Amino acid sequence: MSSDTIFGKIIRREIPADIVYEDDLCLAFRDVNPQAPTHILVVPKEHLESAQAMGPEQRELVGHLVYVANQVAAKDGIAERGYRLVFNVGVDGGLTVPHLHLHVIGGRPLTWPPG
Amino acid sequence: MSSDTIFGKIIRREIPADIVYEDDLCLAFRDVNPQAPTHILVVPKEHLESAQAMGPEQRELVGHLVYVANQVAAKDGIAERGYRLVFNVGVDGGLTVPHLHLHVIGGRPLTWPPG
Repeated sequence: MSSDTIFGKIIRREIPADIVYEDDLCLAFRDVNPQAPTHILVVPKEHLESAQAMGPEQRELVGHLVYVANQVAAKDGIAERGYRLVFNVGVDGGLTVPHLHLHVIGGRPLTWPPG
Repeated sequence: MSSDTIFGKIIRREIPADIVYEDDLCLAFRDVNPQAPTHILVVPKEHLESAQAMGPEQRELVGHLVYVANQVAAKDGIAERGYRLVFNVGVDGGLTVPHLHLHVIGGRPLTWPPG
């Protein structure tokens, strides 16, 4: 169900990560190269290569990642100030690990454009 | 059901927009201040102030926005090169219009960090 990527290995507890949340569908842990005071990745346990790989049957799962992102942001104390949620797709999008993940970034003002 | 924001007005066809997609749940149109060759907003017809305002019952709707984002990206010819999907929440996130919208940005390499 999970993948041979670094995120699949984190999900299977084969390599360590600073895990902040887990449920049946997903895992959330801190990015090892944080771009802001809060930088958490929300990753589905089911392997999808990116947001682009989702079918209509995965809409609830993808929405769940966003729902969980809000919970981990609140837990990190940034609910009020706000944050940015980012899915990268493909080379232009900057996808580096081919296992769907949602970036939760906050704790400082985010500038525009988003990259 | 929609809002008094500029996006509510676009949904109700009170003000014009360059609409690229519509279904029962959402509308997609080009951002008037594009940050890349492709810059489209996917907006639910139901009014939610931001991604943060969603409840568990809106998970399928929010996942639908991501699903539609992939369709409009493909229609714009950027499926292969990739793109970035962004939800802004609150002041730090850079939310400017208080009606949930998903930015679909591509057609050039996106840099990191995303703002």
